[in-house]
Amino acid sequence: MKKIQLNPVGWMSQLSQVEVSKLEDTTNSELYRMFRNCCLAVLNSGVDEDNYEVLFSPYDSFDIRLIKRERGVKLELINPPEVGFVDDRLVRGVHEHLFSVLRDMLYMGNKYAFVHQQAPLDSSGITDMVFDMLRHAKVIEPNNELNTIVCWGGHSIGLTEYKYTKEVGYQLGLREMNICTGCGPGAMKGPMKGAAIGHAKQRYKAGRYIGISEPSIIAAEPPNAIVNELVIMPDIEKRLEAFVRIAHGIVIFPGGVGTAEELLYLLGILSHERNAQQPYPLVLTGPAGSESYFEAIHDFVGATLGKTAQSKYQIIIDDPAEVARVLCQGSKKVEQYRLAMGDAFSFNWSLKIEDDFQQPFTPTHKTMAALNLHREQPLSDLASNLRKAFSGIVAGNVKAEGVKQIRELGPFNLSGEADIMSRIDALLKQFVAQQRMKLPGTEYQPCYTINRET
Amino acid sequence: MKKIQLNPVGWMSQLSQVEVSKLEDTTNSELYRMFRNCCLAVLNSGVDEDNYEVLFSPYDSFDIRLIKRERGVKLELINPPEVGFVDDRLVRGVHEHLFSVLRDMLYMGNKYAFVHQQAPLDSSGITDMVFDMLRHAKVIEPNNELNTIVCWGGHSIGLTEYKYTKEVGYQLGLREMNICTGCGPGAMKGPMKGAAIGHAKQRYKAGRYIGISEPSIIAAEPPNAIVNELVIMPDIEKRLEAFVRIAHGIVIFPGGVGTAEELLYLLGILSHERNAQQPYPLVLTGPAGSESYFEAIHDFVGATLGKTAQSKYQIIIDDPAEVARVLCQGSKKVEQYRLAMGDAFSFNWSLKIEDDFQQPFTPTHKTMAALNLHREQPLSDLASNLRKAFSGIVAGNVKAEGVKQIRELGPFNLSGEADIMSRIDALLKQFVAQQRMKLPGTEYQPCYTINRET
Amino acid sequence: MKKIQLNPVGWMSQLSQVEVSKLEDTTNSELYRMFRNCCLAVLNSGVDEDNYEVLFSPYDSFDIRLIKRERGVKLELINPPEVGFVDDRLVRGVHEHLFSVLRDMLYMGNKYAFVHQQAPLDSSGITDMVFDMLRHAKVIEPNNELNTIVCWGGHSIGLTEYKYTKEVGYQLGLREMNICTGCGPGAMKGPMKGAAIGHAKQRYKAGRYIGISEPSIIAAEPPNAIVNELVIMPDIEKRLEAFVRIAHGIVIFPGGVGTAEELLYLLGILSHERNAQQPYPLVLTGPAGSESYFEAIHDFVGATLGKTAQSKYQIIIDDPAEVARVLCQGSKKVEQYRLAMGDAFSFNWSLKIEDDFQQPFTPTHKTMAALNLHREQPLSDLASNLRKAFSGIVAGNVKAEGVKQIRELGPFNLSGEADIMSRIDALLKQFVAQQRMKLPGTEYQPCYTINRET
Amino acid sequence: MKKIQLNPVGWMSQLSQVEVSKLEDTTNSELYRMFRNCCLAVLNSGVDEDNYEVLFSPYDSFDIRLIKRERGVKLELINPPEVGFVDDRLVRGVHEHLFSVLRDMLYMGNKYAFVHQQAPLDSSGITDMVFDMLRHAKVIEPNNELNTIVCWGGHSIGLTEYKYTKEVGYQLGLREMNICTGCGPGAMKGPMKGAAIGHAKQRYKAGRYIGISEPSIIAAEPPNAIVNELVIMPDIEKRLEAFVRIAHGIVIFPGGVGTAEELLYLLGILSHERNAQQPYPLVLTGPAGSESYFEAIHDFVGATLGKTAQSKYQIIIDDPAEVARVLCQGSKKVEQYRLAMGDAFSFNWSLKIEDDFQQPFTPTHKTMAALNLHREQPLSDLASNLRKAFSGIVAGNVKAEGVKQIRELGPFNLSGEADIMSRIDALLKQFVAQQRMKLPGTEYQPCYTINRET
Repeated sequence: MKKIQLNPVGWMSQLSQVEVSKLEDTTNSELYRMFRNCCLAVLNSGVDEDNYEVLFSPYDSFDIRLIKRERGVKLELINPPEVGFVDDRLVRGVHEHLFSVLRDMLYMGNKYAFVHQQAPLDSSGITDMVFDMLRHAKVIEPNNELNTIVCWGGHSIGLTEYKYTKEVGYQLGLREMNICTGCGPGAMKGPMKGAAIGHAKQRYKAGRYIGISEPSIIAAEPPNAIVNELVIMPDIEKRLEAFVRIAHGIVIFPGGVGTAEELLYLLGILSHERNAQQPYPLVLTGPAGSESYFEAIHDFVGATLGKTAQSKYQIIIDDPAEVARVLCQGSKKVEQYRLAMGDAFSFNWSLKIEDDFQQPFTPTHKTMAALNLHREQPLSDLASNLRKAFSGIVAGNVKAEGVKQIRELGPFNLSGEADIMSRIDALLKQFVAQQRMKLPGTEYQPCYTINRET
Repeated sequence: MKKIQLNPVGWMSQLSQVEVSKLEDTTNSELYRMFRNCCLAVLNSGVDEDNYEVLFSPYDSFDIRLIKRERGVKLELINPPEVGFVDDRLVRGVHEHLFSVLRDMLYMGNKYAFVHQQAPLDSSGITDMVFDMLRHAKVIEPNNELNTIVCWGGHSIGLTEYKYTKEVGYQLGLREMNICTGCGPGAMKGPMKGAAIGHAKQRYKAGRYIGISEPSIIAAEPPNAIVNELVIMPDIEKRLEAFVRIAHGIVIFPGGVGTAEELLYLLGILSHERNAQQPYPLVLTGPAGSESYFEAIHDFVGATLGKTAQSKYQIIIDDPAEVARVLCQGSKKVEQYRLAMGDAFSFNWSLKIEDDFQQPFTPTHKTMAALNLHREQPLSDLASNLRKAFSGIVAGNVKAEGVKQIRELGPFNLSGEADIMSRIDALLKQFVAQQRMKLPGTEYQPCYTINRET
Repeated sequence: MKKIQLNPVGWMSQLSQVEVSKLEDTTNSELYRMFRNCCLAVLNSGVDEDNYEVLFSPYDSFDIRLIKRERGVKLELINPPEVGFVDDRLVRGVHEHLFSVLRDMLYMGNKYAFVHQQAPLDSSGITDMVFDMLRHAKVIEPNNELNTIVCWGGHSIGLTEYKYTKEVGYQLGLREMNICTGCGPGAMKGPMKGAAIGHAKQRYKAGRYIGISEPSIIAAEPPNAIVNELVIMPDIEKRLEAFVRIAHGIVIFPGGVGTAEELLYLLGILSHERNAQQPYPLVLTGPAGSESYFEAIHDFVGATLGKTAQSKYQIIIDDPAEVARVLCQGSKKVEQYRLAMGDAFSFNWSLKIEDDFQQPFTPTHKTMAALNLHREQPLSDLASNLRKAFSGIVAGNVKAEGVKQIRELGPFNLSGEADIMSRIDALLKQFVAQQRMKLPGTEYQPCYTINRET
Repeated sequence: MKKIQLNPVGWMSQLSQVEVSKLEDTTNSELYRMFRNCCLAVLNSGVDEDNYEVLFSPYDSFDIRLIKRERGVKLELINPPEVGFVDDRLVRGVHEHLFSVLRDMLYMGNKYAFVHQQAPLDSSGITDMVFDMLRHAKVIEPNNELNTIVCWGGHSIGLTEYKYTKEVGYQLGLREMNICTGCGPGAMKGPMKGAAIGHAKQRYKAGRYIGISEPSIIAAEPPNAIVNELVIMPDIEKRLEAFVRIAHGIVIFPGGVGTAEELLYLLGILSHERNAQQPYPLVLTGPAGSESYFEAIHDFVGATLGKTAQSKYQIIIDDPAEVARVLCQGSKKVEQYRLAMGDAFSFNWSLKIEDDFQQPFTPTHKTMAALNLHREQPLSDLASNLRKAFSGIVAGNVKAEGVKQIRELGPFNLSGEADIMSRIDALLKQFVAQQRMKLPGTEYQPCYTINRET
């Protein structure tokens, strides 16, 4: 049995004894099992595999233990994967990521645990928690330069698209913008790699490659090699809020349902009247050949959320430098707005996010079937419900809990207004046809059925 | 009316909106009045005056306000003293100190407030709080080098003694030791000034000059110009615990009752059987001519706490280099012990401190009169009670609350076993004769009477 | 006409007025024309083209001027290529490289000019000059960590080989080794890109990507995007000496005649009896499929220089991690040797290099024909002459002066002992067959003929 | 015999073998004896003694040796004074200073030696040499902030004056100005100590305390403890040029003949018509009670150089904050002028200094007697000759060569126009009366006689 002890780094190297005791108390919990899995995903960093079962199965004997010392806590790895080691020494970046996982899942998990169980947080409480977690991860302080660009897009994209995401990242890097993505391969990795080259050419030493994940997705999308700041938010809603509050601009590349979820989440928020004045640079972009993809998205948005939502973004095809320029110039307007509002540069406090976008949505056959997918509701509510529908399909595709449900009970059933359902169906079929649902190699089995109400 | 707005620095520049709201809620509290006074003391940094009434009276129109912005909090000074300004710009060090006061008194005050009022903290809870406050003040992380020397001694000392404290600081600085004192003039300032020169000669850039104060004393002993890290602990007991847990060695210079309080506190702790193996470099030192002073102290310790307590320190007369060498070598033993115990270098977790040394002692005529000053009790208890007696006299001499009580009700009454009371009386008389009670200039009026029980 | 002025950086920002005047005096010289071409090459950094005529022809109107100010010198670019600019601002890395070219070619050129013309430098004078130029370029001081790995290999290599060089660089980077190459694409770029990823994963901030070029080759091999330290040595011999004296280990990838020249140069030196004890980690490596290539090289070395020369290197096929481990372990021996010799870590003073390896060899039809390619001479001389033969072929292939001669007078004529000539012929034919002479796309026209004496 | 070996630091840690050999060649020279004495002075850093014989006599057995290694040069100290050591380790600052002396005296001495002996440098050659030496000492690059204030004044001043120089330094430090003086005690030390406190309060980490000395004065004025950059210029004229070209403003405190020399040197230059537009902040200042001193100086300048010269400075009595403000505001004008002229911020190239102010003046009985001290000559020449007269008296007072001459041949004889001579006489008598000629303790024996021609 191979054992390796790791000294704590960052915040976790300065724990009080009470904090250490609390950490120890978690080791028999369900949370701890998730923590173990996240660590295993981090240790597989760089491996291209989105099937968590395939990824994890060789490592049944892997375990991770907390070791309490007078001065704090160490981690002990039992039979870890070899991939993260160089001549028997754990790669420094992976070492740091493990303690980020410990910090966010167990340490911060303790801090907020009672809240979840007893009394759910209200809207401002959730925003505060998101802020607190990012501050703890030291994401807030250096986020003052108005140069954080969040990139969304598929983890499973073709080589042409991948190269294009690198090129956009390169053009952003040349303009000294930093990159934040959701961890993982594909469109989450390309912009970081490109930006790293751009930063190097500009001798920009402060390059940030922020990965924001959450426990149920990290196994499918482990942090790539470039990520130098890793944050694990408790759930998808808080992860999305973290993205949109630290971003000074967002790029959306071609992707699948996850990307559609992100776009709908953001458009739902930006459509809120209190955000009407808020400049929010948002670019949808892809290489030559992706025109039809974006037309489909654009039509879908137009048909469901309308023209105002469409006006919130700009579609740019095959022009990475122009994408970077638009975001650069956009960040100047963001700066003026924040100054005018007295808002922080590092965190977008003034962006209004309704409670419904913040509360965790747990996809089950019941909650999925219950989603209101009709037009006769406020646009913001429709956006929120569409977002949840796509979120559930992501879970059914790649998240452990979702996959298990589908296996046991068959596909989720989505039903609603015929026109809307048809459009959803068309969009999903396109994703399937373009192999955006899963990494290529196996045939995709839909985890949903679509019912058009008449 | 002169108004100056200050942007937040350090931790206070990254507050959540909930935290800012909580800060605002304090502005009508008693705590806020103390906060205002501490800020006024900080703004008078460098002024030699230990009478808080004299210090404060010209600044009745001074006020300090919290200004809430979307992005956090600013401070607004109304009619501040001119002494902290250079060409209408506040000196950076004073600016930082003001936000340290805000952080420790209001922000951390909020965090721990309910605990005090509802359920008092137990021993390990207090230690955790001390750690948490020091960690927040960023004192813990850089304290890993085993080179933090705490210096105690009188704020009112003669020029020969002052020069001697500088010389000891210089010798410590040449050996790349850092200095921590209680803020204020005299023996709290001299070692820092000397160390700064020693650090400069050794091109040691990381020089730390830590001042640890508490709200009721800071007006009498505002931080001197050299202090580059300021921490305000909630009360004298937590301040003392902070000193002894971050120290890698302690020097005690000649001083008055405050210094005696500190010595008794430390000896009471070191006499605990669980600390018997703990190496703790402790040197009592003064210039030529101070022999009789230290003989008196040594005799007092011998007569009250006995030989074991005497064995915990070393008295060195007029040899600054030897003082520094003893502490340097001592810190090597500290290192070995911490390694053996698995204890942190930055915080002495394994030092046992009994609850009685941790709980706040509020000196009143009643509590002072009730102190048990007899031999028939464990040595540790006697040390604790003697410590409290001296603590009360400090309050009666220079702290606002204490001075007020004395003015209204006359001197505190201390009574106990005849032999012990005689020794206390003798020691105090010596302090008076040597003008160690107050800064010179006025005649000292004792704030206590001594009763020998028969 | 587009004009852009550049402020000086690095050493060139601190010139005396006499130095500036001397720089100005060069502007009508032949040297200045070369300087202009080197700058044009640097401005094309990242463009894949090794035909200097194709590279330069679109930029006939390009010029570069020195502008003298009271405080020093600026550069003015006239009609520069757009490739180095981002939104009309020159990329910082290219900006730095231009001033490196100015520093090395004009400033240092002035310093050493008279020496060349009047009295040639002797061996120790040349070594001092190499040291002085590297010191000026700030290469020496940070070279103390014994982690500088020089990588040699072809600029024109296939994708499999290119990926392999990246992988070796990655493994070196994971072990915190730095990379030095000759600038340019292919095997000069791959290891740097790989190392950059390795460094990022290890959070190694001090990554160095040193490019050492010389005026006649830089147009064919402009610095790639990763190079963050650029040095232009006056000629190929001083460039080679710079490589071997700052290296703590060397990797040779598959390449063409240039790579063969480098290998022969190094083996000639290492075969010197005064270098017999010198540990010098040297690995020849390539991906699976390159076995026959290295067999051919190995045989050629064996047949010409013998077994001792063969013992100086290790051939490793398709095992990047092993390559990195061998170099890592080798650098430990280098450290011991330098300590034992009292030699610097940053510059290998004790390596003996004979004068014949240092004096510039100018390939002409006459000097090439006169090369002594027979066995009846010391091995070191044979190595030197073989090195010169390959050096001449490089010139005939890609260097302006050489290409011009070949065009006017036909191929160089090499003649010598039949067996040796056959082996040379075979090796060259292999290079041609593998497209290692030039970037693919055109058919290779040999710039040499081989005569076997009977 | 105590021996201590020192590893090289800074530039001297990167020497070529040829450079090391050249250094070795100096070890039998007269220059080397001076080098040994300068090192001895540096090792006595902090000792208050201006009689070099008294300072040196206990250290007859002291010697310093160059040790050549393959990688460079080490210094070996034989029987060094103990004062620079802490627990047998040389203080880092002293260590650095020793290698500064080696760099400036031997290394740069070698570089410029031949020039002195064979062909004297012309005016622009001297300026280039001054620049080159400062650049080598890394004084130029960080001198870009326009905040270098040169302070001149006596090494032998009273306590009131000393405290005043500290206070001025403190006010400069609070405004983030750096200090440059001539090394040594008194007015050369006070401003640095004061500035260090000011810098600390402003958390200004980049504080520079530059000491510029020359071989013949350093024994009388060894660098004080605060100096963190030491430069040894070859002679007094180059030292003065270094001062005036790196200064962004100058303060003159009360002093003796050396200070008068400095003032006359500067006024002579500023009176040059080509410097008429040059803004040059110059303040003469002292504490209350120094009015009559400055009146005497002011009258002397008026009577000899006239009103224009008087207009070049401002006299401020007893107002340190005002002194600092005047210099701060003055540096803004300096910035505008340098920008307008295209001149460097770090070195005042455009200041015209006539050759006569640059060429070394060697005081002997003959050259002193030959000085032209009459009115019928250009003002600039008169200023130059008065400067030389005072320079000779400094030599006769404290420099080894001068003291020796006086001892052998009696006082220097100065003669000239009666009115001028009377004014010189009066000024010198005042210096004597105020004990400004030598450190107090012995009666001053004049090293000059004054003859009034009729």
